[in-house]
Amino acid sequence: MKALEIRPRVQECLDEFIQEQRPLLNKVSASLDPLADFAHEFLSGGKRLRAAFCYWGYIGAGGKDSNELICASTALELLQACALVHDDVMDASDTRRGKPSIHKRFETMHQESKWLGDKKQFGGGGAILLGDLLLSWADEMLMNSGLPAHDLFRGKKIYDLMRTELMAGQYLDIFEQARGGGSIENALNVIRYKSAKYTIERPLHLGGVLATDNKQILQTYTDYGLPLGEAFQLRDDVLGVFGDPSETGKPAGDDLREGKRTVLIEMTYQKANDAQKSELNKHFGKDLDDQGVATLREVVTATGALSEVETMISNLLNQSQQALTEANVTAQAKEAFSELALAATSRRV
Amino acid sequence: MKALEIRPRVQECLDEFIQEQRPLLNKVSASLDPLADFAHEFLSGGKRLRAAFCYWGYIGAGGKDSNELICASTALELLQACALVHDDVMDASDTRRGKPSIHKRFETMHQESKWLGDKKQFGGGGAILLGDLLLSWADEMLMNSGLPAHDLFRGKKIYDLMRTELMAGQYLDIFEQARGGGSIENALNVIRYKSAKYTIERPLHLGGVLATDNKQILQTYTDYGLPLGEAFQLRDDVLGVFGDPSETGKPAGDDLREGKRTVLIEMTYQKANDAQKSELNKHFGKDLDDQGVATLREVVTATGALSEVETMISNLLNQSQQALTEANVTAQAKEAFSELALAATSRRV
Repeated sequence: MKALEIRPRVQECLDEFIQEQRPLLNKVSASLDPLADFAHEFLSGGKRLRAAFCYWGYIGAGGKDSNELICASTALELLQACALVHDDVMDASDTRRGKPSIHKRFETMHQESKWLGDKKQFGGGGAILLGDLLLSWADEMLMNSGLPAHDLFRGKKIYDLMRTELMAGQYLDIFEQARGGGSIENALNVIRYKSAKYTIERPLHLGGVLATDNKQILQTYTDYGLPLGEAFQLRDDVLGVFGDPSETGKPAGDDLREGKRTVLIEMTYQKANDAQKSELNKHFGKDLDDQGVATLREVVTATGALSEVETMISNLLNQSQQALTEANVTAQAKEAFSELALAATSRRV
Repeated sequence: MKALEIRPRVQECLDEFIQEQRPLLNKVSASLDPLADFAHEFLSGGKRLRAAFCYWGYIGAGGKDSNELICASTALELLQACALVHDDVMDASDTRRGKPSIHKRFETMHQESKWLGDKKQFGGGGAILLGDLLLSWADEMLMNSGLPAHDLFRGKKIYDLMRTELMAGQYLDIFEQARGGGSIENALNVIRYKSAKYTIERPLHLGGVLATDNKQILQTYTDYGLPLGEAFQLRDDVLGVFGDPSETGKPAGDDLREGKRTVLIEMTYQKANDAQKSELNKHFGKDLDDQGVATLREVVTATGALSEVETMISNLLNQSQQALTEANVTAQAKEAFSELALAATSRRV
């Protein structure tokens, strides 16, 4: 896929950045190797959706390809890595992309080294600090990307807003989960901030304003990016319930076990009859076995919630595609945006 | 104290910043008020040492006072707030400055609202996210301070290095604690990065390079700031063992209970005879009562570790003072630096 052909260049930018940080960490102490090692491993692979949306947002607004642009876009992958590392600590998720999550790695290191104190506390501490490093490195990479200073200052304002929205959306997510959700509207609001804006709309905006001071580009990218971003998260939520662990990299039914108040779940609650509600209350947010997961999947399907969410996804994708057809962006970028829409919302992760 | 007269202006800058963030958070959801409220409360008060060192570092290098300078300096208080919020999560410390720590506040909110799930997990999650917000807001404030762009780009490089050193130092701290320390040298290395550079040397450097591109200022500030920073942390460690809770805002003996491998403790271990070692092993890093704290205090004093650390503090202060005498900085700044040295290392917090 042409739109994602930037991936090796993104990886190269990350590799070089970590290589530059290593001696700084090593100067502090040789014991800091795990920070660089874990960061480097964690930053290897992935779709690079956020970097790609930023990159093509720049090209779509009339900007030219450069390694400086790649590095500015790659900053978003560092931000995303922070979000994932901290998210796993907050959710106490021990797995990420089929491998141990970062706090689990620090925990294992503690255990294998027979260190003092509580291994979980050490694991959480290591992961919080590594996430903080990644968050710090993200704006370091953006501002040192080498793009012109006045463009970077313009871009930084979008970047700042995006970070605040991300943290706000993440908080709203744990808040809705804690208070037991209650409405489809709230669940849609969570995914708008936690995911749709953060994954697609704001990266497009960042690329756009790095390329031009014509503010029209912001509306263009919102029209295309926001519905696409919502479709992206709705797809992700469906995969969280029905996805194959070998593809999602997460144990089956993890979202159900955690009690995540997704749109799919709110819809299911709203449509459930009494018998289905009782099944939901019995299993949802509980420590489920495979049978429990299967039961909940049946309820989600039988209520019609699944097909309704699939319809929402289709409608949002149509809306996004329509906006793209009318958008005033370069032809090359239009093609890339079509490809990215597919990459973000296909049934496989 | 004249050097700390900037404090109301620092507070004003923080107040204004939070006021600007509120509508952004509110646009996401009205449920986000606690994020702004907790941040605002947490950012009220304190010595503002880091902002002051940055401010006077700028003045000392020949720069002029301005509100833009105040805001650039105040960014360090946001960074520090992140460090404290995350530190309390990592240490599971429920108290900060005599009040509930941030994760404890979120935990209490969860409990009082009778929400679902584990209150501790919610508390930790809220605090991780609030810390991430504070970390994000810190460089937002620095880069939006209004100082000239080319000065800010020069300053950002120091700021980036400072953040990396801070996270590295924090990790080294939990690492040394986990592996049970072992040497005074390692403990000194921890305080150099976690504290001396981060609290004093780097803020001075940041102020210095924001004011001038003459690199000589870096060495001048290292000569004055690094020994002062080490003295600052050694004083803090002494207060961690012997301090009055009404002054430190921390329960008596908290550092002893946590098993913090400070220079004072490493020194005590090194000097202890067999009987004293057995007392240390029995009490240090354990869930202590007042009697246990008193016993450990006696050991720290009886071994001579306390007086040796006090001597170290004096020597470092002399070294710093000597460097200041010879330093090529403005007379007004010299006076401020003398005052700040006192503020940072006096026996009262």
